[in-house]
Amino acid sequence: MDRSKQTAKARKWFETLRDRICAEFEAIEREAGSDAGFAYKKWDRETEDGSEGGGGVQGLMKGKVFEKVGVNVSTVSGAFSPQFASQVNGASEEHPDFTATGISLVAHMANPHVPAVHMNTRFLTTQTAWFGGGADLNPPLPYEEDTEAFHARLRAACHAHNPTYYDRFSKWADEYFYIPHRGVHRGVGGIFYDHLECGDDVEFDRHFAFTRDVGEAFLDIYPQLVRKRMNEIWNEDEKRQQLEWRGRYAEFNLVYDRGTLFGLKTGGNIDAILMSLPPEATWS
Amino acid sequence: MDRSKQTAKARKWFETLRDRICAEFEAIEREAGSDAGFAYKKWDRETEDGSEGGGGVQGLMKGKVFEKVGVNVSTVSGAFSPQFASQVNGASEEHPDFTATGISLVAHMANPHVPAVHMNTRFLTTQTAWFGGGADLNPPLPYEEDTEAFHARLRAACHAHNPTYYDRFSKWADEYFYIPHRGVHRGVGGIFYDHLECGDDVEFDRHFAFTRDVGEAFLDIYPQLVRKRMNEIWNEDEKRQQLEWRGRYAEFNLVYDRGTLFGLKTGGNIDAILMSLPPEATWS
Repeated sequence: MDRSKQTAKARKWFETLRDRICAEFEAIEREAGSDAGFAYKKWDRETEDGSEGGGGVQGLMKGKVFEKVGVNVSTVSGAFSPQFASQVNGASEEHPDFTATGISLVAHMANPHVPAVHMNTRFLTTQTAWFGGGADLNPPLPYEEDTEAFHARLRAACHAHNPTYYDRFSKWADEYFYIPHRGVHRGVGGIFYDHLECGDDVEFDRHFAFTRDVGEAFLDIYPQLVRKRMNEIWNEDEKRQQLEWRGRYAEFNLVYDRGTLFGLKTGGNIDAILMSLPPEATWS
Repeated sequence: MDRSKQTAKARKWFETLRDRICAEFEAIEREAGSDAGFAYKKWDRETEDGSEGGGGVQGLMKGKVFEKVGVNVSTVSGAFSPQFASQVNGASEEHPDFTATGISLVAHMANPHVPAVHMNTRFLTTQTAWFGGGADLNPPLPYEEDTEAFHARLRAACHAHNPTYYDRFSKWADEYFYIPHRGVHRGVGGIFYDHLECGDDVEFDRHFAFTRDVGEAFLDIYPQLVRKRMNEIWNEDEKRQQLEWRGRYAEFNLVYDRGTLFGLKTGGNIDAILMSLPPEATWS
């Protein structure tokens, strides 16, 4: 069991998945008659002592269908601060070292009939190692059949690995993507999972296979939903609803999302972290 | 020294100030050829045990000059939760009772040359009592002379009461209205003060007089700045800058502002709390 080999394998997958997703999203832009493409920006993680800390690549496309879509891959390593180390699975003040590799994606769509979406999967190592991730659908104007199709595809990916996964992970998503001060969910759910621990190579292989299948499921179903809705006519009132709804999305990410807050308060890459915010939002 | 009389006096002032400010803002709308006016909505504070908890009035105007301006006055009372009581000046688990009365105002302006603004003053009682408040200017496109005029007026209000106030309170505003993850201030500053303790009637009278003068200074200077800039021509690029800048404003309020977070996480009136958010914002 070689942790650095595991991280390298996971990283390779996240980068491959990014390439395939970006190619697919650009193909959708072509179908809509646009020549929009992703622009990529490399960034290096700044460490306090100037040591090598890894970095990432932020991909951003502003297109005709995808009003703003960001896809980040990053592979970083270092030592958590003493206060933080004690809060992280498998880390401690004596053992603050970590590596993290992952992909994260948020798409805000021009047409209010097309759902926005979020997907993120990651592999972390401390004194232990685990996979985590999830995907959730965020339609400003929900269609029951789209919601059902999205969940059905994730359910299939989960069931292929463990009969308990979908129930557990979709409940986790319902709990996580919730805006308490509004008493509403951020979207129509999906799955959220964490701490799929890789105690040995067998467990690594198993959880890695599941995480790949979550990526495959996303890449299969989301473009279908986009293509189904991207040519629907929308009116001003529907656009207005979308912009208000995006205000809720921004509230969730800025007030509650652990990843966002962790990034903001620990000097992460601001552009990459806040890529999730909507291109435009309103509060009436 | 009768705390309830003090609260009643402060409340009366905050309501009078609200009436004068709203009348002045509506007069500005008239001058711009608009007949926009404030709409008022009463709300009652919900207490867990159903006891009387006070409430407030939320005033909202969407005009031609004032794209969205909210002015809230509220007078609430009750008992802090045990966890929270220990964090509040003069409160404790044994003595969780409090009253709070105050005015808060946020104006987001249609023309990017006109500064947005925030003003809030309040009087709290626990086992002790104090005034707090402040005002800060938030120009999307700053003019040095406007910034100077705003500060000069607040400086004069401060100096009339205590030669150390302006230095202390403007520094406090600089520290408070700061967005660490961006490394920038929210606006061009103003004053921020808290815990002007009222141990006896003499202190109450003194700090109440100062708090009234902060309100008077605001009501004197801000309308001057609005009238000076409201007829300036603006182009698309300036509007775009304003919307991006409003994204920063939303970030500050949702990630850092103690009042906003306290309200959101303790079941306050959502509409009144989030009134501070901009009518429209962008994240490019």
